[in-house]
Amino acid sequence: MVGAAVLGALLGDNLLSEIVLIDQNRDRAAGEALDASHTTAFAYSARAQVRAGDYADCADAGIVVMTAGPSIKPGETPDRLKLAGQNTQITREVMGQITRYTREAILIAVTNPVDIVTYCAQAEFDYPRERVIGTGTLLDTARLRQMIAASCHVDGKNVHGYVLGEHGGGAFVPWGLVDVAGVPVDKLHTAFDLPAPLNREDLLEKTKAAGFEIITRKGYTSAGIAASVARVVKGILLDERCILPLSTAQNGACGLSGVALSLPSILGKNGVEQVIEVPLQPGERDQLQQCAAHLKATLGQAGL
Amino acid sequence: MVGAAVLGALLGDNLLSEIVLIDQNRDRAAGEALDASHTTAFAYSARAQVRAGDYADCADAGIVVMTAGPSIKPGETPDRLKLAGQNTQITREVMGQITRYTREAILIAVTNPVDIVTYCAQAEFDYPRERVIGTGTLLDTARLRQMIAASCHVDGKNVHGYVLGEHGGGAFVPWGLVDVAGVPVDKLHTAFDLPAPLNREDLLEKTKAAGFEIITRKGYTSAGIAASVARVVKGILLDERCILPLSTAQNGACGLSGVALSLPSILGKNGVEQVIEVPLQPGERDQLQQCAAHLKATLGQAGL
Amino acid sequence: MVGAAVLGALLGDNLLSEIVLIDQNRDRAAGEALDASHTTAFAYSARAQVRAGDYADCADAGIVVMTAGPSIKPGETPDRLKLAGQNTQITREVMGQITRYTREAILIAVTNPVDIVTYCAQAEFDYPRERVIGTGTLLDTARLRQMIAASCHVDGKNVHGYVLGEHGGGAFVPWGLVDVAGVPVDKLHTAFDLPAPLNREDLLEKTKAAGFEIITRKGYTSAGIAASVARVVKGILLDERCILPLSTAQNGACGLSGVALSLPSILGKNGVEQVIEVPLQPGERDQLQQCAAHLKATLGQAGL
Amino acid sequence: MVGAAVLGALLGDNLLSEIVLIDQNRDRAAGEALDASHTTAFAYSARAQVRAGDYADCADAGIVVMTAGPSIKPGETPDRLKLAGQNTQITREVMGQITRYTREAILIAVTNPVDIVTYCAQAEFDYPRERVIGTGTLLDTARLRQMIAASCHVDGKNVHGYVLGEHGGGAFVPWGLVDVAGVPVDKLHTAFDLPAPLNREDLLEKTKAAGFEIITRKGYTSAGIAASVARVVKGILLDERCILPLSTAQNGACGLSGVALSLPSILGKNGVEQVIEVPLQPGERDQLQQCAAHLKATLGQAGL
Repeated sequence: MVGAAVLGALLGDNLLSEIVLIDQNRDRAAGEALDASHTTAFAYSARAQVRAGDYADCADAGIVVMTAGPSIKPGETPDRLKLAGQNTQITREVMGQITRYTREAILIAVTNPVDIVTYCAQAEFDYPRERVIGTGTLLDTARLRQMIAASCHVDGKNVHGYVLGEHGGGAFVPWGLVDVAGVPVDKLHTAFDLPAPLNREDLLEKTKAAGFEIITRKGYTSAGIAASVARVVKGILLDERCILPLSTAQNGACGLSGVALSLPSILGKNGVEQVIEVPLQPGERDQLQQCAAHLKATLGQAGL
Repeated sequence: MVGAAVLGALLGDNLLSEIVLIDQNRDRAAGEALDASHTTAFAYSARAQVRAGDYADCADAGIVVMTAGPSIKPGETPDRLKLAGQNTQITREVMGQITRYTREAILIAVTNPVDIVTYCAQAEFDYPRERVIGTGTLLDTARLRQMIAASCHVDGKNVHGYVLGEHGGGAFVPWGLVDVAGVPVDKLHTAFDLPAPLNREDLLEKTKAAGFEIITRKGYTSAGIAASVARVVKGILLDERCILPLSTAQNGACGLSGVALSLPSILGKNGVEQVIEVPLQPGERDQLQQCAAHLKATLGQAGL
Repeated sequence: MVGAAVLGALLGDNLLSEIVLIDQNRDRAAGEALDASHTTAFAYSARAQVRAGDYADCADAGIVVMTAGPSIKPGETPDRLKLAGQNTQITREVMGQITRYTREAILIAVTNPVDIVTYCAQAEFDYPRERVIGTGTLLDTARLRQMIAASCHVDGKNVHGYVLGEHGGGAFVPWGLVDVAGVPVDKLHTAFDLPAPLNREDLLEKTKAAGFEIITRKGYTSAGIAASVARVVKGILLDERCILPLSTAQNGACGLSGVALSLPSILGKNGVEQVIEVPLQPGERDQLQQCAAHLKATLGQAGL
Repeated sequence: MVGAAVLGALLGDNLLSEIVLIDQNRDRAAGEALDASHTTAFAYSARAQVRAGDYADCADAGIVVMTAGPSIKPGETPDRLKLAGQNTQITREVMGQITRYTREAILIAVTNPVDIVTYCAQAEFDYPRERVIGTGTLLDTARLRQMIAASCHVDGKNVHGYVLGEHGGGAFVPWGLVDVAGVPVDKLHTAFDLPAPLNREDLLEKTKAAGFEIITRKGYTSAGIAASVARVVKGILLDERCILPLSTAQNGACGLSGVALSLPSILGKNGVEQVIEVPLQPGERDQLQQCAAHLKATLGQAGL
């Protein structure tokens, strides 16, 4: 469902001229391509060529989005790290194929646990570090911002701040960076006439739980993650040098290495061009280190 | 799946500020709304408020999209008219609810058989004729144009012409209206260096079969129909007075009445503002009449 | 030039279906309308109807943009307040006409000195306060953000903070609200590898001088102010409730009244729906009060 | 004015990451760049870098738009060919500079007489034929379509057909290719309830005169031609393979060579990838030949 939703979001952006779908079930890929191709004859729609293909099509790809592997199902334990073993193996197979054809394409990893998958894809295949990008906490950040925006009854684009670390239980929010149009979190109830101050723990819990709440209600997540991928694609194609919380194999930022997790990162035509060291409180630095340690332990269990 | 895909397509257009989802399964609607809401915090995304609601929300709706009711499933007989009995009944229930709250909203019918459903919604509820619009052959037309465009290796926006009549087996193409940038169908192979002339019968059959081919491959259709609905919504919101093949309860155009089917229609802020009588060959006029007769027979069987 | 540039920016947004141009020189308006109308036949362009008209067309307008009156010319003293006498008089004439036909339309004032003009338009005509919006320091803010973004070599959409107060000499920056992706101004050189810390005074001076630098070089400003107006129009049409620094006749926020100047404001379908009291340092509060006093003195001189 | 308007239209499309302005008056270019750069900090605006530069910046340009040289002024004889001598010379200077740095960029010629300038740029510098594109009759076509659309009170995107030949007095319309949603010109009054049939001669004259009417009223043309250039840029960047009437140095299509003029052409990532031979009536073929002869005579006078 995620791959199909990504396809829809990318077509809606009218920025791409060719999209190739690769799936174990080639018939399914052909069906999605056929369905999507019909949208391109409408006024306002760009002529994107959409078709099913195979890994050889990666040879001249600019961007490859990797969504292979199972997700959490309704009723399952809401811990994405449980998927690490299976999806690391799938990632190895996928990357083995991709790297037969390219080391130039920018890879966007979506498969969960996305931080594990991102690290696996980069480190095991010695792929250029800046060119392997996990969507990481980009979606968590969008969720947090939307929740705060809804509370204040304002546009989510005016909510700043990030969810950082793991796309999962180890995610944390540096609250000192969160504000709405310059108003810090602990002043929002005054500035926006809210009945009470926002509850930080509650917001973080709801952010972390949002994906599982959606899974429980509709069976899977698709729209939010697809918009996240489309946001990354747009940032690359337009060489935006926009700053987004993205997961990359860290190389010294905040003293981290040997692990992939999300920090605010400059995204441009070459991928993640710089990781930004935003101001963190001591407790937040601890959370980041704990998050890194937990992810490293999972990497170890997965043989990475 | 269609409703969720429509939601995605509408959000991608950044034209709406409020979208309410109504579903028998309110939990599902809430899940879709939650998932979609997270997309609105991204740069480039408008602040659309998306939430689950109920029929009372129709009271101040500008546009209502109706997708209720089952579709053809993989392996079933590919005749949408088989759904007439069940989906007419569902339409009656839905329209009974909607008309408790509004006769001002423009209704876009998507449920199949869409021509039967469109007629039922308009005629049984005496809803303003121009404000009940079935997506009709808009998607068939997009499919035909895309196929011809792909054959000629050009942009589908340069392919003109329509599939008209029933969104189903009774659809037909007035081939004299079809051209690519002014080149008629029987000259395309010369102008675009094709190996052979295009086969009209083959194109019509593939157009009619496209939906079922997608259903066979991916289980349902979503992207194409969602783009069709988004196209109609944009035409209304921007008062485009664009000409699209849409299904409406006919009121004299081409001598037809007492039936809904697709003819090229001017779409604007008031819905279908005029049906255009495009030039048809005698054989095509016959096809149109046969199509109308067949639909009327189905209407009769459904007690309409 | 500003009106024509606004027209171009609005057409580019594909959100409007009808635009009427009103100018003392009706021939000029007709020429602009004719030129612009030709853009609407292109694929991807919405069918906006563009035509010359007169004040009676305001009767059913949703939004009225007021750009009448002279601007600073190359070589003139760069103080917009010098235009107050003449442009207040022009505003009275324009508002006298507009209010013959509507008190419902949202008015966007662009004419300089925009804070004086905004106050005049609202207060003298008792126009609904939230429906008279001066572009104010929105453009100054865009200029500041772009300059900081260019220094850090990142996307301007990641630069936060505002220029507030007067669109002119009395503008000031609450520097505590300025950050790039969460990094405060005094840490930017570290986080973004700049050769030296950014110079705040220099940035403010360059921001204030930007308009005059453009006027000196190309004779007038157009692109930036047109984009500002288009941003406001989009916020209204999509009911974004986005927060922008806009000039309105203040009604108690920060203790101000009897003057129009820019504070961060929630912009939605009803205009400026709320003024947000962002945290200001004591010195910044003084600057705001001085700015208000200076503008009030100018209002007094203009007989307001 | 055209260059500045093109800049605005391109920024509005959000497809480019870097735009360099080259002008004899570098100060003017810097002013336009500064003004435009401020638009990029707004939400919904891509981070395009806009700056003044010089010909060396063409070295890695994807597309170069050439607008150098004077246009017809209000009151002057409305014959663009009068500009041939002066603007051919300017084109030689410009192309001499450009070809020092690139033969890869796609060149879009806007300077009038555009067919002469296009031929000069391609033939004298042996530039790849498909990579020198004059806007030609693209704007005339937009004007014709808009006029017919306005007469029928429908969307211009539903009007098909072309103005072909010279962007000037020798332009002609193959009327058999013109239709509105499939309704031919001589049936429009019936299908769209017009008071009388459309007058073809009148439409052609008004189309040819539109530019001069705008010049008379506002002093110059800008919006329409800027939208034309933006349309071509989009077609190239998205590899649309859309069919537009564009001027290229012909190489055998319709029996023409040794001259540039507009025929329907497939536009893609490599420029004009194919010229389409649309069906012409014998009289129209004569008009095309006369148009070519007249342009060749002008080329001869300009020493080409």
